[in-house]
Amino acid sequence: MPVKDYLDTNDFTKEELLDMIDLARAMKKSIKAGKYPLLLAHRSLGMIFQQVSTRTRISFETAMTDLGGNAQFYGPGTIQLGGHESIEDTARVMGSLLDIIMARVDRHKDVVSLAKYSAAPVLNGMSEYNHPTQELGDLLTMIENLPEGKKIEDCKLAFIGDATQVCVSLMFICSKMGMDFVQFGPKGHQITDGGLQVDTDVDLLAIGLKNCEKSGGTITITDDIEAIKGADFVYTDVWYGLYDAETDGASYMDVFYPKYQVTMDMMNFAGPNSKFMHCLPASRGEEVTDEVMDDPERSLCWVEAENRKHSIRALLVYFCPPLPNEREIAEEAEGELACVLDKIREYRPEVSL
Amino acid sequence: MPVKDYLDTNDFTKEELLDMIDLARAMKKSIKAGKYPLLLAHRSLGMIFQQVSTRTRISFETAMTDLGGNAQFYGPGTIQLGGHESIEDTARVMGSLLDIIMARVDRHKDVVSLAKYSAAPVLNGMSEYNHPTQELGDLLTMIENLPEGKKIEDCKLAFIGDATQVCVSLMFICSKMGMDFVQFGPKGHQITDGGLQVDTDVDLLAIGLKNCEKSGGTITITDDIEAIKGADFVYTDVWYGLYDAETDGASYMDVFYPKYQVTMDMMNFAGPNSKFMHCLPASRGEEVTDEVMDDPERSLCWVEAENRKHSIRALLVYFCPPLPNEREIAEEAEGELACVLDKIREYRPEVSL
Amino acid sequence: MPVKDYLDTNDFTKEELLDMIDLARAMKKSIKAGKYPLLLAHRSLGMIFQQVSTRTRISFETAMTDLGGNAQFYGPGTIQLGGHESIEDTARVMGSLLDIIMARVDRHKDVVSLAKYSAAPVLNGMSEYNHPTQELGDLLTMIENLPEGKKIEDCKLAFIGDATQVCVSLMFICSKMGMDFVQFGPKGHQITDGGLQVDTDVDLLAIGLKNCEKSGGTITITDDIEAIKGADFVYTDVWYGLYDAETDGASYMDVFYPKYQVTMDMMNFAGPNSKFMHCLPASRGEEVTDEVMDDPERSLCWVEAENRKHSIRALLVYFCPPLPNEREIAEEAEGELACVLDKIREYRPEVSL
Repeated sequence: MPVKDYLDTNDFTKEELLDMIDLARAMKKSIKAGKYPLLLAHRSLGMIFQQVSTRTRISFETAMTDLGGNAQFYGPGTIQLGGHESIEDTARVMGSLLDIIMARVDRHKDVVSLAKYSAAPVLNGMSEYNHPTQELGDLLTMIENLPEGKKIEDCKLAFIGDATQVCVSLMFICSKMGMDFVQFGPKGHQITDGGLQVDTDVDLLAIGLKNCEKSGGTITITDDIEAIKGADFVYTDVWYGLYDAETDGASYMDVFYPKYQVTMDMMNFAGPNSKFMHCLPASRGEEVTDEVMDDPERSLCWVEAENRKHSIRALLVYFCPPLPNEREIAEEAEGELACVLDKIREYRPEVSL
Repeated sequence: MPVKDYLDTNDFTKEELLDMIDLARAMKKSIKAGKYPLLLAHRSLGMIFQQVSTRTRISFETAMTDLGGNAQFYGPGTIQLGGHESIEDTARVMGSLLDIIMARVDRHKDVVSLAKYSAAPVLNGMSEYNHPTQELGDLLTMIENLPEGKKIEDCKLAFIGDATQVCVSLMFICSKMGMDFVQFGPKGHQITDGGLQVDTDVDLLAIGLKNCEKSGGTITITDDIEAIKGADFVYTDVWYGLYDAETDGASYMDVFYPKYQVTMDMMNFAGPNSKFMHCLPASRGEEVTDEVMDDPERSLCWVEAENRKHSIRALLVYFCPPLPNEREIAEEAEGELACVLDKIREYRPEVSL
Repeated sequence: MPVKDYLDTNDFTKEELLDMIDLARAMKKSIKAGKYPLLLAHRSLGMIFQQVSTRTRISFETAMTDLGGNAQFYGPGTIQLGGHESIEDTARVMGSLLDIIMARVDRHKDVVSLAKYSAAPVLNGMSEYNHPTQELGDLLTMIENLPEGKKIEDCKLAFIGDATQVCVSLMFICSKMGMDFVQFGPKGHQITDGGLQVDTDVDLLAIGLKNCEKSGGTITITDDIEAIKGADFVYTDVWYGLYDAETDGASYMDVFYPKYQVTMDMMNFAGPNSKFMHCLPASRGEEVTDEVMDDPERSLCWVEAENRKHSIRALLVYFCPPLPNEREIAEEAEGELACVLDKIREYRPEVSL
């Protein structure tokens, strides 16, 4: 039985994830040429945001409407997940009113519950555990920007800095693809320290290593910069966790600066053609310099941001269930509808219809 | 002159309400078969929510877009009704920018004012007085689930618990249909106590009794459980009013528990085939047990939630005014538009159009 | 090179602004006859509101969807402009995810930055400096309601009261058109006092006078009521700046009342056929009496409010870039898409597509 929800890329095979990429690329090409494939006409997407978001929200809303569908935004505080009403009940009702749901949640277990009880598929728009729509957009970006002569499984990605959920997610997708993944970060902020994972006692590294067994990828976690040598992609994220309200700037600068700032020197240390990536938003002058971020040759971060939209379109198409197509019943219903409308029009000629 | 707005089911005849149900059923059947009747293409619905809502909001937004229209969400605090600007002025402006409006308001008099001054029809999405879109969805649910051999006017509905606006609304629609309506609730929380009605001095029971005179229905309000015997539908709602901010749980548990909790024993006391209904959200373990709510045979509450969407579609079609259709003027305008566009394209070839 | 953004009507020639009006009128006529020109099908508009708005928000959302496009609402607090992420980076990303952007900002410099760094065109939905979408709607309203035998450049507009950004904007558009513009307001609240302009040290009057040099218009700023004689249009706005949080009512009543209240006497003093205009919302009984505002002959303020929608449609069409139209590539992409879909359907027959 195919997996109903997109909660974790580890639920899918390498081949399935690459099919999603192919889907994204075909639609991107089509739309860039002016032709919108209206594969989700009449479908309604509900978007639950427990936290504010720019890129994910706009990407989902644009992607859904590009495909002919409708996207509904539920901002922080507007849909309660697990207050007076149990999350199971909310999921059951939402799943019957909508065709597909995305949720950016505070706690991963909530998006899991939502998926479990909703008949409609659920896409994980980021939790404290992972960020799988970012993973797919990043995979698309890497595949579109492969070094000459290399396949994705030949590539090396070095993540610089804190073990955010984006870092963890990159370990997942790189190990799934058979790439070499490096986290270059200080002790206490490494994936193996379980950094930001609040509610899970999952062994994150074990997941990555299991992927490597199948794919032939490697994982290196270290505070030695030597490990980033040969990286095709140098990736970073902000130094304050999005889940740490009001982190004191001084404290993380002490930990990460200057050793873990991505500079042009670091880029060149990785390799003369290494490309820069960042999930954004960036704190310029902290985890990355302007020079790197704005370099038209080396920086992929702007393309990467746009690719959120393109990859999310693929997820919507991949997971949204097909429209029913029962012609006989539809025709019967059409006749019945015409009758009722005629009847009502007789006494509401001015007001309605 | 037909009624412009859907503020109160008491403004409509039984036949008109049943036409809305027929409309809902024909469209539900059509859409379930994959055919979307785009009756509201190009129409814009404005949705004013003075209070947060899940079911009503998603139902309206999905229903409107199912029909080809556009739904705009104005959350709490985003549209002021009666601050610096009078509600009359707001209504007049909104009525000229939109084709149809729905409002969930704190005070019933505000949705009445909105309707009075807006050229566009207004649908009441719940007030402290009534909940007429819930009424129509519930009527649809009952009609789809009639006991064998019974018509709607032969049925009995027992509402258990507090005289919320949902309870009052059920009295309205049941008495309109000619059904037997029972409120089984404690003194001080009965419809005749005027429970939650804050700003109205309307005699609620009198409205119901007037309906009964015409329809042949009956109304019973009592704290004696004997009255629920023979009920086809057993309905309940939460015990804390949505309008009572921060009600102390202990206080209402003392009043209602355990006598007014819907259990399987109570269901069977009503009758072996009685069906359970709830407007949701529910506080499981308070007004209803898990056993009742999750019983696949007895519980209609999930179907009922989905029926919000189906019945609201009917209301949108029934009340939204028809598109004008002045072909000659439209053709003239089209020619003029083409001329202007040609002129502008000459000096904005790259940038625009 | 044509101007990419609509930030300030002073960036455009009189002829260009009149083309926008022609565009608005042709589409208004077409839509009033029931024919919607779907010029923006597949296009996505992002709407940033740093402040709450009724008219501007509904107008943009309705206008965009009238034209077949999609409008996304980002309310106060949901999109940060210039926090951790620089406004330049936000602009760059949003410009790649959206086709066109509107922003109502606290500070004019922010909408200017947004426009500078966004590839997508940006429309200014009001700042503390100006309100150019209001200007275009007002110009449309005046042109539709010209006194018999007069052209727009023959008309006189008298603004009564405080030098709000609406007052300043009227000076801009009237001087651009070659009209006679009067501000009748108390010293300390005149355009030359720079009233509400907080972050700019622009000489507002100089901009108006430069327009007059070219257009032949005139500008008068005075506290002498004689100056409003002969006005075809008498315009007012609220007396408390929208940017003055919690202004004490008493203080502005002392300054403006009763001298600057628009009464029927004042209207007749201006001229027996003078028309009343107001950007709304109004504080009835303060800057204008009910008698004036509700006079069906003299008051244009309701038509003016509706014209926001009609003029904004024109701006969307004028500024939104054209869809690409590369047929060969599109066909190629369509073939590729069909292949991927076929492949995926094989292993997800039930769940997807």
